[in-house]
Amino acid sequence: MEAKVLYIHFKWFRMKKSRTCILLIQCRDEMGILANTCQFLAEHNGNIVSLQEFADRTTKQFFARIEWELEGFSIPDQQVLEAKFQEKIGKKYDMNARFYFSDTPTKTCVFVSKYSHCLEDLLYRFHNDELNISIECIISNHETLKEIARQHSVPFHFLPVTKENKAKQEQQQRELIEGYGCELILLARYMQILSPSFVQAYANRIINIHHSFLPAFTGARPYHAAYTRGVKIIGATAHFVTSELDEGPIICQDITKVTHRDSVQEMIAKGRDTEKQMFSKAARLFSEHKLLANGNRTIVFD
Amino acid sequence: MEAKVLYIHFKWFRMKKSRTCILLIQCRDEMGILANTCQFLAEHNGNIVSLQEFADRTTKQFFARIEWELEGFSIPDQQVLEAKFQEKIGKKYDMNARFYFSDTPTKTCVFVSKYSHCLEDLLYRFHNDELNISIECIISNHETLKEIARQHSVPFHFLPVTKENKAKQEQQQRELIEGYGCELILLARYMQILSPSFVQAYANRIINIHHSFLPAFTGARPYHAAYTRGVKIIGATAHFVTSELDEGPIICQDITKVTHRDSVQEMIAKGRDTEKQMFSKAARLFSEHKLLANGNRTIVFD
Amino acid sequence: MEAKVLYIHFKWFRMKKSRTCILLIQCRDEMGILANTCQFLAEHNGNIVSLQEFADRTTKQFFARIEWELEGFSIPDQQVLEAKFQEKIGKKYDMNARFYFSDTPTKTCVFVSKYSHCLEDLLYRFHNDELNISIECIISNHETLKEIARQHSVPFHFLPVTKENKAKQEQQQRELIEGYGCELILLARYMQILSPSFVQAYANRIINIHHSFLPAFTGARPYHAAYTRGVKIIGATAHFVTSELDEGPIICQDITKVTHRDSVQEMIAKGRDTEKQMFSKAARLFSEHKLLANGNRTIVFD
Amino acid sequence: MEAKVLYIHFKWFRMKKSRTCILLIQCRDEMGILANTCQFLAEHNGNIVSLQEFADRTTKQFFARIEWELEGFSIPDQQVLEAKFQEKIGKKYDMNARFYFSDTPTKTCVFVSKYSHCLEDLLYRFHNDELNISIECIISNHETLKEIARQHSVPFHFLPVTKENKAKQEQQQRELIEGYGCELILLARYMQILSPSFVQAYANRIINIHHSFLPAFTGARPYHAAYTRGVKIIGATAHFVTSELDEGPIICQDITKVTHRDSVQEMIAKGRDTEKQMFSKAARLFSEHKLLANGNRTIVFD
Repeated sequence: MEAKVLYIHFKWFRMKKSRTCILLIQCRDEMGILANTCQFLAEHNGNIVSLQEFADRTTKQFFARIEWELEGFSIPDQQVLEAKFQEKIGKKYDMNARFYFSDTPTKTCVFVSKYSHCLEDLLYRFHNDELNISIECIISNHETLKEIARQHSVPFHFLPVTKENKAKQEQQQRELIEGYGCELILLARYMQILSPSFVQAYANRIINIHHSFLPAFTGARPYHAAYTRGVKIIGATAHFVTSELDEGPIICQDITKVTHRDSVQEMIAKGRDTEKQMFSKAARLFSEHKLLANGNRTIVFD
Repeated sequence: MEAKVLYIHFKWFRMKKSRTCILLIQCRDEMGILANTCQFLAEHNGNIVSLQEFADRTTKQFFARIEWELEGFSIPDQQVLEAKFQEKIGKKYDMNARFYFSDTPTKTCVFVSKYSHCLEDLLYRFHNDELNISIECIISNHETLKEIARQHSVPFHFLPVTKENKAKQEQQQRELIEGYGCELILLARYMQILSPSFVQAYANRIINIHHSFLPAFTGARPYHAAYTRGVKIIGATAHFVTSELDEGPIICQDITKVTHRDSVQEMIAKGRDTEKQMFSKAARLFSEHKLLANGNRTIVFD
Repeated sequence: MEAKVLYIHFKWFRMKKSRTCILLIQCRDEMGILANTCQFLAEHNGNIVSLQEFADRTTKQFFARIEWELEGFSIPDQQVLEAKFQEKIGKKYDMNARFYFSDTPTKTCVFVSKYSHCLEDLLYRFHNDELNISIECIISNHETLKEIARQHSVPFHFLPVTKENKAKQEQQQRELIEGYGCELILLARYMQILSPSFVQAYANRIINIHHSFLPAFTGARPYHAAYTRGVKIIGATAHFVTSELDEGPIICQDITKVTHRDSVQEMIAKGRDTEKQMFSKAARLFSEHKLLANGNRTIVFD
Repeated sequence: MEAKVLYIHFKWFRMKKSRTCILLIQCRDEMGILANTCQFLAEHNGNIVSLQEFADRTTKQFFARIEWELEGFSIPDQQVLEAKFQEKIGKKYDMNARFYFSDTPTKTCVFVSKYSHCLEDLLYRFHNDELNISIECIISNHETLKEIARQHSVPFHFLPVTKENKAKQEQQQRELIEGYGCELILLARYMQILSPSFVQAYANRIINIHHSFLPAFTGARPYHAAYTRGVKIIGATAHFVTSELDEGPIICQDITKVTHRDSVQEMIAKGRDTEKQMFSKAARLFSEHKLLANGNRTIVFD
């Protein structure tokens, strides 16, 4: 219960968000990287709005995310920017540097099977501009969620998978992903294991939601396993997919409490909320270019 | 990523949930209340599946929620049950006793204005059987969310409210509530203050979601006030509506952390998740007959 | 910063806590157990202040914890009470029934090695009456924490354990436990595995704190394993000790968040808080007679 | 239960922590601040291990915390460093710049009255090297906690405060603080209001723990007020002290859940854990030079 005024303010606040450029870098940790990079941006009139860095003392690797305003910045063209940066800074430090623009949403493909909660949560946040993504298509091995896709006007591709047709269907999936130009693949409780070659083709670009706090309860039926073990917490984990099942780099994970009164069914119901929160959070982090792989660990600049 | 088997099990677990009867009681705390009530149920073959009680030592009031299986219970008719219980037990302890059947969903009316997140979350859980309610209608002072109502096939009543027509519109609202037979009124970020007479007509049956951890930041624009005060947590509170703004009995409340980096807009975005969780949780608790008023405090038998 | 008045009130509130009797029951689930038990208490003028029950639908077992005021109760003698209850109720339902008095603290023996945090937290709460225990002695395989024991005037027994003397030392430990009359054995980061015979002798009476969210990271060095796996949460689990390492019934567990910035050392430091909280919570639950074993699951009536 | 090996590793990890220098800056937000500052450090061989910045878009103020290794850094002398930095960078941006060395613990004075929990928690963490402080003395208006001070070999100064002697006693307190060279004053549930002149003398250097989630329940007896309001969460807030009671900049705050079963006494007991955690956390943040005042808001670089 509040005055009308708030709504108008809300709109006004949103409009003020300025266009920015984001730079993600990874290289061997050396003296002067930040100094030189900041100098480069200052010379081209780039006003930094956010800078985060991390030096892994074990691997001697350096990581950073720098975001600056495009307004006034003297190299607004991405290709020119990449070339100039590479020449002036990147080469010197043998740097892996990637540039992103905040007004370009991440093209995303969602894989589903029968459960709707993670998909619905994603679609809701997508429509409410909570996520900087554009959902290009939904791919499913079941027709269960076709109607949801239709309601949200997202193309739905039904590709049932059997042992026999798996290779062929994955080929279809890859053609769809390429056709739509997707950079991010979200597995919204997709009940199929992807082949190693598929996974390798999209390294650090496939995010799965697993319904347990990994590394506990990998594989099928984690809530049943959790019930049997008599745990007092259940959880969910969003992670990058690698060729080893449920072993990929963890992006985010959280838990919710359960008691001796909770049946498996009640655990499943309680767990759904954590699943969808972690799933959408991982999608948001990816789309805001806040994730960097560091071996089997994930750097989260949030 | 899991085997297909889980889905089938999930269905199977759901079907097993048995029909139950729920008794809510309140009376002066005296010796023997539980003994006599349990005896009554045992005599009529009622197998208790859940019993919770609370004796308020300050007010000397006793409260309980008892749930038993209807299968085998010898008084399956609600009116007969009420009469018999009143005669045998209720009269003796001057008891306020109410009976509910688990297979009768709570008829609910939702009031909205322009924000969709609490309504959408409620509708999603309603469709997924997470809430034992039936949403009979949506009443709004704006047309903004009309399309959502249409998509979910819920009647939408547009009743714009001005200073001049407020009394007349509230009359309309009450007629709709009575017409649909609603027992629960949910204010899903409804941006109007209800009149004292309206509130009294539905005492302990109107639930509001306020976007702060009450009693902090009552009234309009709590996120702005929270930002100005420089708090490190923001919250949401579901409470019964009384004639004093944001002063009614609290049902549930929770918080989320914020940092100096969060603008008002980001606080609003972060807060939405807590708002919808608390709102749907309060609706669930009400519909499972787990809430009892104890003056300005709420007993939650969860 | 507050007025002096509070402190006086605080004392006053404490003094008001009345003496109670607690009954823990377990038996096959049948109609009328609660009715008959409550009837028995009412007949002997026992005013129930708390009643919790749980019927396990899988195993058809019934569990309850009932607490009533001793003031006015007509059978204040524990042996008479046990005999009368057994005759009237227990026999009929082949019930496992145990009675406790709230003014009898649980005699406790604490096993430690070198880490002090769980022991210190326990001692602090013990001195501040947060736990209904009396710490009879500390047994250790190292002398590291001897001084802490001395400061708190608790007998300290140094029993270094090697492969060769393990059986002999366990015999010593058992004699100490029996000598002091301890009902509860708390392993406060004790870095030795107890023999199966020792564990069996004190079934459901030995509580260990493990520094991970079980079942993840069992065994030695869980923080190192957590760091290597790149998790975003770390945790601690209090559980009853069985002959299988870290596999006993879980009493309570919780987590804290970590980021890519946390080294193993920082994880260890962050984890300590959760460890001591879960450890002291488990001790509190045991001493308030709120724990019941249900196979490999723990019923927590909190 | 774990192998002995861990302990040794733990020690080893601790020893590896290198000596660092920390720079806190605040100035008007302008292009090039970070570039020039990083350049300065690189030129003097300062290897940055952590950099955090924040630009307040409302006030146009810029804040940063930069930490670099002292090993190899060519200006190891603090005075020379300050002068050189001021000349090269500080002057240009009209910067408020402060330098700290990680191996210089923050000299701290603790004010107490009768409650021990916050003091005990602080002392425990102090002894276990969790806090980079040195506790120089304890000042109290009661003798209650004298023995704790003695056990920990910390000087205890008993300065009872009445309306009449308040000014004189504050003079004594200030002499003690100056005499010990304390930079930080911690109010560990000190039940007296400090005078405006005292507060001004130590602006942003006095930290209080208030036993509620501010701004709710300011003033005396917040748990009683929370009980009366019927809240479902209680909390604690660590904040800098200003001349307005409980209105100073918030450093950190957290909550714990309560139910209708919790009496005021139980709220007080439950709240203690949050109080001591927030209190020690604020002390840790201050001692690691992670706090910066931004008007009535606190920037926390954690």
